[in-house]
Amino acid sequence: MDKILRINMGAENGPQISEEPLGDYVGMGGRAMTSGIVSKEVPPLCHPLGADNKLVIAPGLLSGTLAANSGRLSVGCKSPLTGGIKEANAGGQASQVLARLGYAAIVLEGKPDDNLYKILINADGVKIEADNSLKGLGNYDTVAKMINAYGDKVACISIGPAGEMKMASASIACTDMELRPTRHAGRGGMGAVMGAKGVKVIVLDDAGKKMRKPKDPEKYKAANKIWVAGLTGNAITGEALPSFGTNVMTNAINEAGGYPTRNFSEGRFEGAANISGETQAELEIARGGKATHGCHRGCVIKCSGIFHDKDGNYLTKQPEYETLWAHGGNCGIDDLDAIAMMDRLDDDFGIDTIETGVSIGVAMEGGLLEFGDAEGAIKLIKEIGAGTPLGRIIGSGAAVTGQVLGVERVPVVKKQSMPAYDPRAIQGIGVTYATTPQGADHTAGYAVATNVLGVGGDVDALKPVGQIELSRNLQITTAVVDSVGMCLFIAFAALDQPETFGALVDMVNSFYGLELDGDAVAAIGQSVLTNEREFNKKAGIGPEDDRLPAFFQNEPLPPHNITFQVTDEELDEVFNW
Amino acid sequence: MDKILRINMGAENGPQISEEPLGDYVGMGGRAMTSGIVSKEVPPLCHPLGADNKLVIAPGLLSGTLAANSGRLSVGCKSPLTGGIKEANAGGQASQVLARLGYAAIVLEGKPDDNLYKILINADGVKIEADNSLKGLGNYDTVAKMINAYGDKVACISIGPAGEMKMASASIACTDMELRPTRHAGRGGMGAVMGAKGVKVIVLDDAGKKMRKPKDPEKYKAANKIWVAGLTGNAITGEALPSFGTNVMTNAINEAGGYPTRNFSEGRFEGAANISGETQAELEIARGGKATHGCHRGCVIKCSGIFHDKDGNYLTKQPEYETLWAHGGNCGIDDLDAIAMMDRLDDDFGIDTIETGVSIGVAMEGGLLEFGDAEGAIKLIKEIGAGTPLGRIIGSGAAVTGQVLGVERVPVVKKQSMPAYDPRAIQGIGVTYATTPQGADHTAGYAVATNVLGVGGDVDALKPVGQIELSRNLQITTAVVDSVGMCLFIAFAALDQPETFGALVDMVNSFYGLELDGDAVAAIGQSVLTNEREFNKKAGIGPEDDRLPAFFQNEPLPPHNITFQVTDEELDEVFNW
Repeated sequence: MDKILRINMGAENGPQISEEPLGDYVGMGGRAMTSGIVSKEVPPLCHPLGADNKLVIAPGLLSGTLAANSGRLSVGCKSPLTGGIKEANAGGQASQVLARLGYAAIVLEGKPDDNLYKILINADGVKIEADNSLKGLGNYDTVAKMINAYGDKVACISIGPAGEMKMASASIACTDMELRPTRHAGRGGMGAVMGAKGVKVIVLDDAGKKMRKPKDPEKYKAANKIWVAGLTGNAITGEALPSFGTNVMTNAINEAGGYPTRNFSEGRFEGAANISGETQAELEIARGGKATHGCHRGCVIKCSGIFHDKDGNYLTKQPEYETLWAHGGNCGIDDLDAIAMMDRLDDDFGIDTIETGVSIGVAMEGGLLEFGDAEGAIKLIKEIGAGTPLGRIIGSGAAVTGQVLGVERVPVVKKQSMPAYDPRAIQGIGVTYATTPQGADHTAGYAVATNVLGVGGDVDALKPVGQIELSRNLQITTAVVDSVGMCLFIAFAALDQPETFGALVDMVNSFYGLELDGDAVAAIGQSVLTNEREFNKKAGIGPEDDRLPAFFQNEPLPPHNITFQVTDEELDEVFNW
Repeated sequence: MDKILRINMGAENGPQISEEPLGDYVGMGGRAMTSGIVSKEVPPLCHPLGADNKLVIAPGLLSGTLAANSGRLSVGCKSPLTGGIKEANAGGQASQVLARLGYAAIVLEGKPDDNLYKILINADGVKIEADNSLKGLGNYDTVAKMINAYGDKVACISIGPAGEMKMASASIACTDMELRPTRHAGRGGMGAVMGAKGVKVIVLDDAGKKMRKPKDPEKYKAANKIWVAGLTGNAITGEALPSFGTNVMTNAINEAGGYPTRNFSEGRFEGAANISGETQAELEIARGGKATHGCHRGCVIKCSGIFHDKDGNYLTKQPEYETLWAHGGNCGIDDLDAIAMMDRLDDDFGIDTIETGVSIGVAMEGGLLEFGDAEGAIKLIKEIGAGTPLGRIIGSGAAVTGQVLGVERVPVVKKQSMPAYDPRAIQGIGVTYATTPQGADHTAGYAVATNVLGVGGDVDALKPVGQIELSRNLQITTAVVDSVGMCLFIAFAALDQPETFGALVDMVNSFYGLELDGDAVAAIGQSVLTNEREFNKKAGIGPEDDRLPAFFQNEPLPPHNITFQVTDEELDEVFNW
């Protein structure tokens, strides 16, 4: 993982491939790499769909090694959704394979001709060729064509029709172990930028390549052993997530009164039990699917799953908590089959499930359809795939949907939709939504863990006290986790188990021959955040954008009947470390 | 004009009317008043369509007096289009009538119930009542109903269906002398905010009221005499504008190579002669319309006109230069009848002709229809009126249209569409577009006058030298003109004729018993701009938003093959007075 692959899609005689050493980007992986390259090379005021934007795809620092759960792939660019810098990461196989192929980053640059391209990267090198037969295909059909051509040992990174149409909610799909395009770098319209670069799919084949070798293999192996024991022995990562997936959160958040219901109008959803993790797991198992499944080799948490339809045929992967919420309670829908169908369509068209569900909720608020109308919601998603005018509105995200329909209550920060936790009932996540350079994003500093689950300390969800410090520390830690390539869920174990956190640091040190201590690790996270915030500032996104929409201050949320209590002055202190 | 009328549309038992003395707003009129109230009373981060925004309607300081051309009405609020502070002003009769009724401002506040209201203001006071029979009516039918109910001596301020649907391009219409809703406060979505306040129409009747009296009537009359002589004796305000209207600019700007053609791709339009002021005037006269006409009593420039259809029946007022350009050359259309039909539809639906034309140009660039397709453009405008999904996209303005269709070349600043002058060939207007707190707006500092027409000095249109100072001075002067209630066109005379400018200052002084000198007048303009910029900064619109879209720097414009040359550092100096 000692080189960067650049493909200039705008070169005069067709796409031009070049490779270079890491240079300024030595020591960077994942989000540190994507945000490093974007903040250094992309003009902050360029158009996100133009020649000057770059799409950076980077495995984490420990991807492609034997480290458990090191399979996150970061994707970064200037976002067509937020207008700021963006990183989104995905599970699946791609990160491990790309790392073993030796690439610390793929950078797509320039403005292509009218062709649609596929890129093949294997032990022989890199090939790019036009393949217009892929135009308009869903992710499932795209991957099927690639398997047909390149065999079933590959990993794919692809976009669906939404990315080709450059919609601001378009995602980038990565295939899982069964070569299904179900793991998405979902947020911020990454897929639109890949579409704007004219690239439909990147096929990765690491045949002939080996696991990446640490500098100190013994120490590395020993650290990984402690690491795995820490993950498998923890109640959340070793029991709850494997049993019920991320959807284990439905009951917990609903009970806490922070489950945003019908476009953030209430904090409890009467239909929650019908779509909870427990209900879902039971249904999956009864139909011959799976409630426990890893999205990439080397995962020991296995929060993924397989969802079959009523006839026992594969429909989609187990929908995540955020998806079940966005299409479920947020839209007043409590039908697991309908939501699973929406998940399948989202994955196939290549759109972010959170952004899509929140946009539909805003459309419901705007009177376009009724809350609870599952058939109507499915129809809307099909319009996105078809690129009708209405589909293009919804596919442009909740901020645009709200603007176009004249809706006032639009739950976005920096134009990105809020995920499945109401910031009034879980004030710590509100601080993260407001201040992260990424736009409203739970994964950027998951204060829910501490506010609701009692992980990593105990800060009262309903009070502003302590939330700034909590979010600050989590944002710093998360920036590191996102750079190492670790799945964020490791934090449930690492935050409360010092030996587990120590094992992670030991793995980085023994792999790279470093001697980082805790402060040095924190400095990495701070540096990532600083890069991102400086880019945003130059792009016109400053502290005044570090705010929740006014209705979170003005409208008390049942059942706690509470508003967001953290002041603007406090929010401005988050990055004052 | 010594009181402010406030109507709280959200009061518990229906709209609540109150009147108050000017208080903090003494000495303010027009834009100074609207921006004064908005910057002091509206939370910068509120939702533009929510309870906390306010719609302020204010006559200029000299409106309702005998001063020639003092009939501009300012409308202000937080803009649903730009997200920043906004003032748009319109001609027509409303300003004079409202001033004579004694109101320095109408302020609509709060969030209404589901009714649609009409407001009647006359010598007896203020009445507001629900009238849901007005729902969905165009401006023409709305005004016809008001004439039916209140007689033909009134003036109306109204919105069409676009305002009711809260579209970000919705305008507010004022009636002209013939009671046609043809003079619009067009820019920035003012009509959406009036719609969000639940007000369809304000009917003004000044029967029994008299012309406003100056403190020093003799001096005032004498100053107005010099003023009128200055306007009627000037080549532009006394000859060109009366003969050909604002459309006299088509040939001039096309000749200068700064006529933005087919979505700002070229600077000269091959069809310009077909839609020029000269051609239009000839056609209007031949069909029994008028090429010379005043939009309000007391206008001595008379740049307005009447456009008849092929059968000699009234179709619309003489379309303005900006309209002819936006729907014409900007869309590759050179058919006067088609453009006049679009103008009529725009006025009736209540949408900004500039924003609408630029949005259609962006849609053409996005492949939705072909450049030159006049029938397609008319159909699109009808979709806006009908509120179809596609119509809602276009009606949301060019920035949203570009985002939804994935178009990169979108000519907006602060999300507001650029008017009819390419900033590459007329660099001074580019400085105004970039830096005015209003979003891309030619009227905020009309550097075209100096760059192209040689009015107010001579600064080379193609070079950056001198443009900052030019735009700065014009922006300051314009803020004053907009506050006095004067039509901006008086500047053609006032900039080059010291005695004409002096007469304007004398009128303000003799009317109010003041002794303002030139510096004091400039300070008024600076104070308006400072208020507006501070509001914007708190709303998250800072110096990084004082920029043109990247393609104006990257893409040379034929025929001069020049890019925008003013640097970011220079732009940041505009308000450094």
